[in-house]
Order: sequence, then C-alpha cells, then structure tokens
Amino acid sequence: MVVTKIKIGVLGATGAVGQIYIKLLANHPWFEIVDVAASPQSAGKTYYNAVKDKWLQDIFVPENVRNLVVRDVQDYTKLPKDLGFVFSAVEMPKKEDIKAVEDRYAEMGIPVVSNNSVHRWTPDVPMLIAEINPDHTKIIPIQQKKHDWKGFIVVKPNCSLQSYLTAIFALEKAGFKVDKLIITTLQAVSGAGYPGVPSLDMIDNIVPYIGGEEEKTEKEPLKILGKIQGDGIVNDESIKISATCTRVPVVDGHTASINVKFKDKVPSKEEILQIWKEFKGIPQELNLPLAPKQPIIYLDDDNRPQPRKDRMNDKGMAITVGRLRKDPVFDWKFIALSHNTIRGAAGGGILNAELLKAQGYIK
Amino acid sequence: MVVTKIKIGVLGATGAVGQIYIKLLANHPWFEIVDVAASPQSAGKTYYNAVKDKWLQDIFVPENVRNLVVRDVQDYTKLPKDLGFVFSAVEMPKKEDIKAVEDRYAEMGIPVVSNNSVHRWTPDVPMLIAEINPDHTKIIPIQQKKHDWKGFIVVKPNCSLQSYLTAIFALEKAGFKVDKLIITTLQAVSGAGYPGVPSLDMIDNIVPYIGGEEEKTEKEPLKILGKIQGDGIVNDESIKISATCTRVPVVDGHTASINVKFKDKVPSKEEILQIWKEFKGIPQELNLPLAPKQPIIYLDDDNRPQPRKDRMNDKGMAITVGRLRKDPVFDWKFIALSHNTIRGAAGGGILNAELLKAQGYIK
Amino acid sequence: MVVTKIKIGVLGATGAVGQIYIKLLANHPWFEIVDVAASPQSAGKTYYNAVKDKWLQDIFVPENVRNLVVRDVQDYTKLPKDLGFVFSAVEMPKKEDIKAVEDRYAEMGIPVVSNNSVHRWTPDVPMLIAEINPDHTKIIPIQQKKHDWKGFIVVKPNCSLQSYLTAIFALEKAGFKVDKLIITTLQAVSGAGYPGVPSLDMIDNIVPYIGGEEEKTEKEPLKILGKIQGDGIVNDESIKISATCTRVPVVDGHTASINVKFKDKVPSKEEILQIWKEFKGIPQELNLPLAPKQPIIYLDDDNRPQPRKDRMNDKGMAITVGRLRKDPVFDWKFIALSHNTIRGAAGGGILNAELLKAQGYIK
Amino acid sequence: MVVTKIKIGVLGATGAVGQIYIKLLANHPWFEIVDVAASPQSAGKTYYNAVKDKWLQDIFVPENVRNLVVRDVQDYTKLPKDLGFVFSAVEMPKKEDIKAVEDRYAEMGIPVVSNNSVHRWTPDVPMLIAEINPDHTKIIPIQQKKHDWKGFIVVKPNCSLQSYLTAIFALEKAGFKVDKLIITTLQAVSGAGYPGVPSLDMIDNIVPYIGGEEEKTEKEPLKILGKIQGDGIVNDESIKISATCTRVPVVDGHTASINVKFKDKVPSKEEILQIWKEFKGIPQELNLPLAPKQPIIYLDDDNRPQPRKDRMNDKGMAITVGRLRKDPVFDWKFIALSHNTIRGAAGGGILNAELLKAQGYIK
Repeated sequence: MVVTKIKIGVLGATGAVGQIYIKLLANHPWFEIVDVAASPQSAGKTYYNAVKDKWLQDIFVPENVRNLVVRDVQDYTKLPKDLGFVFSAVEMPKKEDIKAVEDRYAEMGIPVVSNNSVHRWTPDVPMLIAEINPDHTKIIPIQQKKHDWKGFIVVKPNCSLQSYLTAIFALEKAGFKVDKLIITTLQAVSGAGYPGVPSLDMIDNIVPYIGGEEEKTEKEPLKILGKIQGDGIVNDESIKISATCTRVPVVDGHTASINVKFKDKVPSKEEILQIWKEFKGIPQELNLPLAPKQPIIYLDDDNRPQPRKDRMNDKGMAITVGRLRKDPVFDWKFIALSHNTIRGAAGGGILNAELLKAQGYIK
Repeated sequence: MVVTKIKIGVLGATGAVGQIYIKLLANHPWFEIVDVAASPQSAGKTYYNAVKDKWLQDIFVPENVRNLVVRDVQDYTKLPKDLGFVFSAVEMPKKEDIKAVEDRYAEMGIPVVSNNSVHRWTPDVPMLIAEINPDHTKIIPIQQKKHDWKGFIVVKPNCSLQSYLTAIFALEKAGFKVDKLIITTLQAVSGAGYPGVPSLDMIDNIVPYIGGEEEKTEKEPLKILGKIQGDGIVNDESIKISATCTRVPVVDGHTASINVKFKDKVPSKEEILQIWKEFKGIPQELNLPLAPKQPIIYLDDDNRPQPRKDRMNDKGMAITVGRLRKDPVFDWKFIALSHNTIRGAAGGGILNAELLKAQGYIK
Repeated sequence: MVVTKIKIGVLGATGAVGQIYIKLLANHPWFEIVDVAASPQSAGKTYYNAVKDKWLQDIFVPENVRNLVVRDVQDYTKLPKDLGFVFSAVEMPKKEDIKAVEDRYAEMGIPVVSNNSVHRWTPDVPMLIAEINPDHTKIIPIQQKKHDWKGFIVVKPNCSLQSYLTAIFALEKAGFKVDKLIITTLQAVSGAGYPGVPSLDMIDNIVPYIGGEEEKTEKEPLKILGKIQGDGIVNDESIKISATCTRVPVVDGHTASINVKFKDKVPSKEEILQIWKEFKGIPQELNLPLAPKQPIIYLDDDNRPQPRKDRMNDKGMAITVGRLRKDPVFDWKFIALSHNTIRGAAGGGILNAELLKAQGYIK
Repeated sequence: MVVTKIKIGVLGATGAVGQIYIKLLANHPWFEIVDVAASPQSAGKTYYNAVKDKWLQDIFVPENVRNLVVRDVQDYTKLPKDLGFVFSAVEMPKKEDIKAVEDRYAEMGIPVVSNNSVHRWTPDVPMLIAEINPDHTKIIPIQQKKHDWKGFIVVKPNCSLQSYLTAIFALEKAGFKVDKLIITTLQAVSGAGYPGVPSLDMIDNIVPYIGGEEEKTEKEPLKILGKIQGDGIVNDESIKISATCTRVPVVDGHTASINVKFKDKVPSKEEILQIWKEFKGIPQELNLPLAPKQPIIYLDDDNRPQPRKDRMNDKGMAITVGRLRKDPVFDWKFIALSHNTIRGAAGGGILNAELLKAQGYIK
C-alpha cells in the first residue's frame, strides 16, 4: 500500500529543540520533513552544513534531511506550496518577533504546532497535552474566525509540569478533586538549551532557581485543565499550586517531588495505583504513532523513578511515578519523572500534531 | 599564659565522620585528642597506618594524631585515665552494640558526645542543636541518676534537618508559630559515608530516596523543639512536617526547599529577614570557638544558596538561606543549605561539646 | 519461513554484564535465551524476581526472560538438553572457581563464549575481536583434543583496548607496521560493575588508576595480533605498548589518547583516513547481525569523539576516532572511543558467537 | 613593628582569574590592593556591586576590596600615584588591545605581572615559574632599555604544563637530561573561565580537545627552560614534547599522564623519588610567603594524585605526583597534578611578584 505522507516543515530546525524534532521525525509514518527553516545565517546552506558544528544528538544527522537547503524562516516566498503544517521551535531574541512569525504562517494557511511560550496565554490558542485536553482543539475554528487565519496555532505547555500533571489529571478524571499541590522540581540541564547552564555551576553543585519556571509551573496547568467558554479557554481556578524549581546535574529528565491535598474524597493507595495503571487518553484510544501505550507507569521500588533509568520509558513519552506514600501534612506524596526534551518538548509537539491529524484539523 | 586543654578521645576515629572530627580538631583551642579508638582490625596500629588507605579528606592526616596508637573501642583497660570526654562516631553493624559501647563509656564516667542515632529517642538523652535547645542539657543530672552513670550521653540530630530547622526556630522564637512544613531535600553523597552511593547512580542521575531519612526529618525536630518534663524530654507536637529526601550529585552540602504555613500571625518579608539577620543563640553569646558569628546568612541573589559556593560559609557552621518568596499555597517558601558533615555532623558535635564545657558539664 | 533459533544460556545472567547480554539478546535473530544461570541465592526464583533489585538498564527486564527460572550455575543436572552454547559472564570471588565452571561446561559439550579473563592466557583459547583475528577460531579443534572437551571456550579481551586496537590493526593490515604505542585511557565507571566506583571518588574528581588494567592493555593486544603455532597462539612481540589507565566520571564509553610510532613506512594523513574508512572485517563481509556496517568511524570535528555523543554509533558496536594529527615525538596521534559494555563486553561477545555460528563451530 | 605594604592594583579584577587574585591577596603580608580596574561597564561602581552577580568564589567578597571604586582599566588619569605594580588578568576580545594596555602600564613605570598569553613569546619578556627560572628576571633591564619603559612586564606560562614541568625540571637539574615527553592532560573546567564549558558537554562526558592548549603545552616549556642570550631568551630545544589536552568534569585541578625518555643516564626509582623530595627552588630558599614548603609532593598510594583530594596541597601551590613506574616504551611514566587557578594562574602570579620583590625589581 502506498501511503502519502503529509509534507511538513520545522521552523528553528537547527536549534536545540529543532534538532530533537529532526531526530524524532526521521522515520515518522505520517509526516515527512520537506522544509527546514532557520535564521538568515543558516539560510542557503544544506541542513547538514548549517547544523554540524552545533549538532548535539547522540545519532548522526539523519539522511532524510541532510541535503535539504535551509530556508530563512522569514522568507515566505520560498515556502513549499503543499506544506501540511509546521512545527515551530524558532528562537529569536524578541518574543514579539517569534509571535509575528507564527502569526504569519497561520495567516498564510499553514497550521503551526508550536513549542514556544509566546502564544500560551492567547485565550483562543489551545495549550495541549494530548492525553488531558484533546477537546481544546475545538477552539480552532473560533481562533481562525477571530484572527481571520486560514491556518491556526496550537501550543504545548512548559516541560516542568509534564512530569506530574497527567498523574494529577488522572485522579481528577476519576472523581478525586485536587485542592492543593506543593511541588519541588529537580530539572535537567537540557531544558536550558545550548550552551545553557555552565559546567562550573553543575559540577558538585545544584542551582535552586530557574528564571520564570515557577510561574509557568503554577499557572499553565490551570489553562490546560480549563474549559472553552465563548471565544476563549477559561482557567480551572479550583487547584492551587506552589512550585519550587531547581536545576540539577542531569542531562535529560525532569523529576518532581509532589505533595497533594484533595478537596473532599481522598483516594486510597490501591485506588490511586489502579487509576494510574488504567489511565488512557485519546492518543491511546486512537493508537497514535508516538503515544505511549501506558501513559503513567508506576514503579514499586523505593528508589524510583530515576532520570537515567526511567526517562526513556516508552520512547521517552511515558511519565514514570513512584514512592506514593501518606503525607503527614497533605494527603499523599509521590515522585514523578518525564523526559523534558521528548515528552516535554518535541515528542509532545509531535503527539499534538498526530492528534490534530486524527481529528482532521491537518491533512 | 599556659592553657591546659581538655584531653579527649574519638570513638570510630578512622571512619568517614571520625576523620572529620580529626580534621576539625587539629588545632582546637580547648580540646586535645589523646585517644583514637576504632575496630579491632585497626587496634595497635598508628592512626596514620590505620587510616591511610581510606583517608578521604582534602588535607593530609594531621600531625597531632599521626602517631597515636589506635585503641580497640571495646578495650576499656587501655583507656587514658584523665579523659575529659569522647566524641562518638563509632560504626558497628548492630545498633544495640553501638548503644552498649556508648552506655559503657557513660557508666565509666566518661561523657559521650555522640553522632549516632541510637540514643536520639532515649527520653533522657538531649538531642542538641546548640543554638536551639542548649537548655536541654539540664536533663543530664536526671539522666545520670536514672541510669546510675557517672558520665552522660548527649547526641546531635540527623544532618537532613539542620539546613532549615534553625531558620524555622528563629521565627518561632520571635513569636511566629509555625503550623506546617512541607520540605524536599537535595542531599549530598558524603551523607552516605564511604563507599556510600555508587557513581553509577550519581552521574547523570538523582535518586529520590534515602532510607529512613524522611522519618528522621519529620520527627527529630519535635524533640529538639520540645521541653523537659519530669525525667524526659517531651516533643513539641504543634508543628506538622512532611519531608521528601533525595540524593543528588553533590559532594557536601544538603539543600532544602521549604514551604511554611504559620498558625496565626504571618510575618512580613521584612520581619523574616530581620529575624534571621539578628538571630543569635547561646553559642554566639558565649562566643564558643566553633560557633558561627551569624548562624543564619540570607543571600539576596535569586540563584543562591548553592552547595559549592555557600556550604563553607563561616567555617561550614553557618546555614545559608535564600529565595524567600510568597507561597501561593502556604505562607512563605524559601531555600536553605547547610554543610552536612561539618554543621550537620562533626562540627555540630564539637559545638555541642563546647557548649557543655561552657555550661560546666565537662571539665 | 520458519527460522529455528539456537537455544542458548547466559551464565551470570543477573550481574552487571549478564544484564547487558539479556538486554542485547532480547530480539536476536539467531539466538534464543532458554537458560539463565546465576548464584545459588538467585536459583529457583524467576529471572525478574532475582534481578529486579539490582537491574541497572534503561529498559525494563525484557518479556522473553522475565519468567525463566534461574538455575544455579553449578547445578548441571538442570541444564536444558539442547543448548547450543552459553555466554559466560559469571562472577565468583575466586578466579579458579570461574575457570572450573567454564571448563565443566566445555567438557559437557557446551561451547562457552566468555567475558571473563580467566582463560585469556590459556594458549589454546582464542581471544577474539571478530574484525581482527577471526581465524584464531581454527585452534578450537586443537583445544578440544588437548583437553578432551566436546565443547570449547573462546574469550574476548579487556574493554580498555577495544577503542584503539581495531584502528591500529587496520593500519597494520594495510602494510604500515606499528612499532610503539603510548596510550592514556579515560575509562567509564560502568567498567567497574555495580556498586563499583563510589560517587565520592567521581564527583569533581578523576582517579588515575584502575587495578590490573594497564597490564591487560599492554599485553592482550599481543595475543590478539598473534598467530597459531603448534597447539597454541603465539604473541606478536613486534609492537611495544605503554598504557596509563584512568577512571573518569562518564557512565559508558572508554576514550583513549594514542601516540603511534611506525616501524618503517609512515602513512600520510590521507592514507590513514582512507584505510580507516574502507576497513572491513569478516563480520562485515558475512553481514553478521550485530556487526557495525563501518567498524571505524572517523569524525572531522576538532572536539570529537565524545563518550555521550559517540558511544552508541552503530548500536554501540562501531569505534569512533578523531583528532588525527602529527605527533612531534612519534609519528601520529589520535583519539579513539568505544562503548565499553557493548563493543567492549556483551556486544563483543555476541559478535564472537555470531562469527562462530557463521564458521560452523556452533549450531 | 609597622610594616608598610606595597600598594598594588589588579587589572581585570572582576573576571574569573581576577577574582582569585582578590581572594588570595585578601591578607597578603607584603601587598595591599588599592586599585581594582576592569571594563568601562564596571567602572565607577564599588567592587562589590561590579562583581556580585558574577562572583564565583567559595568565600564572600573580601572586606578589604568591597568598597574600592572600580577604575576603567584604560583610564590612566585615575591611577593611584604610588602603585608598586599591577597584576594583569585583563580580558579583552582582541589580543592586541590587551598587549597595548599592558605596554602602556609598563611605559608609565608600573611593573606588570601578567597572567595573559600576549607577551609569552616576546623574546625579552620572561615567562616565569619561580622555582625553575627565577634568573630570567635578569632580562628586565634589557627589556626596559629596548622598549624605553620605566616599568616592565613579566608573564607566567599556561596552566596546562604546570603540573609536570617542575617535576621534569628537578630531574634535569639533578643531571638527568630529558629527551622526550609524551603527555595527556585531563584538565578542569575552571581553566575555561565563566561561563566556559557548557554543562551539556561535561555531564557523563569528556571533551578531547581544548583550543590552542596543546601548542602551548608543547612550546612554552622550551622558553622556560631556555637561557638569556643577547637581548632575548633562547629556547632549550633539546626536549621534544607531544601533548594531548582533554577537558574532564572536574572543577579545579589539572592532571597529567606523563611518559619520559631520558637522553643518556636514566635515574632509578629511588633517585627520582629522592630528587623530587629534596627539590627546592629560590622561593623556598627565600621563604616567600606563598611558596610551598615542598614544591613536589610524591604520594605512595596507587590511586593518587586525585584532583579533589590533592589540589589544595600546601595552599594549592604544591604539585602532587604519584604512580611512578617503569615505562615499557620510554623510561618512566607518572601522574602529576596542580591546581590550575592557584598554582597555574593567580597563585603563580603572586609568587612571581614575591620573587620580584625579593630580587629588588619591585619595591
């Protein structure tokens, strides 16, 4: 059977996140990269030549993109005509420039599946975790009408919250309403890009601060758990979250220590483990290519999850939890882990695109 | 002026904590090591020969102890006669054996300033942080009478709680009663001794579990903040603590992320900073040799405290705090750090001994 | 087409190297694990239960072995009857006990493909790197006759020399005889097993010593490059090697800094690069399942090879070299890297077994 | 007794090396910092305010310099009048600008003790290791005359060679002429300044390349071991050196693996150990404040020297060697270590200044 793949582009294809898109999409069953866009300095070079001095991945630059000629991300004249959509991992010094670029693509009729934070708080742009709020894509027609766009924009949330939010959502969905969360994260250095965190700060050291990260960790979940009302998504204000975000000497994999207080009903340990074990979302029902079979994996061992041993569970797309135990102050406490550049960045973006295809928003 | 120093011994002198006692006591103005005791395998050797293959410190074995002959810790016949007291960092496979050894010294009239956990929950043994509960030493005569000991035993608490408890106590002392604490620690590998944590678990990894540590972190503060009643120390049950303890790739220095809820009055940021800045305990009033001048140092910078840069503040005896900010769930959150093998182990033990001398319990 | 796989066993299946055999053999096209053997403590348990507390890999215990019941490695009565051969990664305190176990299997007619060092210097046991000395297997009939074994034993060399020896051999094979090698290795901690190197020695530190490693690195190449003469393998004494072996904070991947002096003809840079690029061995000609397509990969970039980025090249089976430059003292110097637990241990062992099957020694 | 200290300045006082000068000079018996100079951005601020966001040391900014007002390094009008000399750790994008600045100070009559590489190959500028070539200062009058300078310039060599060169020189001085050296270094990240090496390159990784470092390691020793002839220093071309320089995840302390071939006479192990033990230079004879008592410390243990345990030997000014053993290719091999930012940078510079004062060149 001949399958015609959707032709796609990657904006910011030579950057740290762009490279992971390239790596993860090397053999994708539905999507085929035909366009790689980056800054004017890279434009005109082959992708291989543009990226080779800053290639960070543990595989070589994939064959399928080596010889693509890099396009200036703002040169709209060279855009391939039959582009199904683009992933945006574009990096620019000014946030408004990123926004202008993404808006322009949407305006021209090209859907944008974005990793950037610029549109996360645009009320009619859905911030998607495919297992949690796949229905937020219903705002797309409203968004298109409002902005007079033929394309559209969807975004993914920050990586710091992806280790625990699905586990919390599974409990909410099962009827155990969460009241308060106190969270401390131990985040990997790849989250800061390259060159990112200096090694002088990460040998025999931790840094108890990541600029802007705590605010995102506290607020983005409220939109993800929110509802479409009128022409925007309205936050779920019923959960209160307090986050402390720290940087630790780990390459990939954000770990979170979580304390949970429920509103009324408090689930038993058996109930929680059962809920997590059985949790499936739309990506699992639709059997999307990058969807983890079991989105939440619980490990029994006292000393798990650990970043190096658990971050790659189910292609880096599952979250791994452990150490569920009674909390003397709140109700329960546990540890959660997710791969920040796969589940929390490029992998999450690809899963969003797969969802949009399955829902018919991209073709 | 000729000063006669108090002659002292170190039990478990060749172990990881014992070595730090040796290092910190090399030039102590009040105490002079005349006795080093260890296991039967080391007994009879010079301290240098017994320790050289496992010496972990960044200075050479100090001159003053190199040629002392190691005594079997259970060979009581060879005890020097005029020993003022002993530090106990003795390690034995069975807890009851450690207890028996410490009891025996106390029985023979030799005060024991212990690092071990075996006596932490003996009701008439004070668990001292010299700045917090120096008055708990008043139980010593009661202890001596009850056990019919001529000597006595005092202990120090676990290292995991020393980064934050003094900061919390300072607020309590100033009249702001604490209701609840949720804590996540990022603890250094030196806390596990040697060989301790395998490097395969600490390169590109963290381990979200330390056996027994969370229980100690949650319960020991209650005794330290407690009161002498009758012939024992009764816990302060008014604070509820929830702890998650993790191991990170840091050599020395335990960091804690702390969320605090107060009972009634909530201090302002200015009040808290003022209280911490001005906090002094008895060790500061008495100007004890190893007492930090300012026990709680607050750093303004967003990204502090950091283990490698702040653990040695004031000889490793100060605790360093930072990032005090409003907590959306509780009242305040902050980061605290202390040197686990100095303030949290041998340095804390020495300060306890200095306190006991100043109070007249050892001579 | 129905393929009947060869039934095999893994001796020492629960240890650090045994686990990597289990991981790499999970989907092997030719071999099927039917027997897992370990110490008496593990015997009788399912493999999953025996290994779960010490499982170190970044994937879960593979399905195909989870429910196999572990056999005591010295319980020969429970041996499956139709075992084609065993991989030996058995660990025992005494070397002679390991030797006795391996000899016994050989005696009973079961070929042993061993990771252990006990038989490396037995003159009639070939020490194989499949690309270098595949013809050394011709000594197998001689070995069998001499020991009166129905099975036989082959071994692989130490991991420390596998980063550079194939690169050197390729030059020798092309007619450029090597006179002297001076080598300094920077070796990964996984080479020391688990628990292995304490983290207190590997955070902010290196250890310039690995017991026994320099001797192996200097001598084992001589046998590998040697020839069968009479009933033994005679060393190639024409190369002189000096090795310094150090341990660095890297999980996997041994790096070597190599200085080479040739005997007469000195190849040009272009010649060396050409030789490395075109080098193929028997495993490549036979297209063995685990054979790397290109055994020696040269990277142009100044700062390569690097362990984390290059160790997994071609499934961890290729060696990666770089920085070839004129040596002011010898002729040339370069950097080489190989994955120590794959190419240098279990992967190398599996490739040896594939070679033996292709050669008809195992069926 | 009232001692009048020499008033000094530090050029580039806010940079990574400048900070170490500030730290090491906080209580110097001979020198008193009265001038701190840096870039125009820092000029006009107090030193504390200029440096606080980039202060990297493990002590707080010393009291004695906190309130000094930073001078623009190129604002010569604000120079204190009675400056004895300056340390130069000035950093500028263009080498010729650094050279121009240092020349200008020398021209104005202010001796410059420099850490920079710009003047290392100026024939009449001595490149000093105080224990090796203290007599090279005799070129100072020649230098002054040639350039018509009232001040002068001396420099120190690169940090990468300081771990082993003194040990080699000691053998040469004792009559054992060295023919060839093959060296591989394992260098600490502090050598690259701040931000320097990204943590993504230093967690679970090493980088086998440091730009320009191998050339310096191979050539600078020749000048240091050279002789004054006419109006310049002529290299000792009798030693051939081959260096491979790698970066490893260590904060401070460069390690080197060294293979040595002697010209004629080869010393015995006992002779080498004796020579190293007894080696003293002029700094030891003059008892200079920062001179290590024993410049070369040999450790017997198989696994030493190690960066974290040995870099601070004798205030970070001693070099530590170990593992002296027969070399199957050359004559001897050993491991050497020195603290790269103390002995190899600021400490070495201060020792040079102390030597110049003792010799009467600065007053």
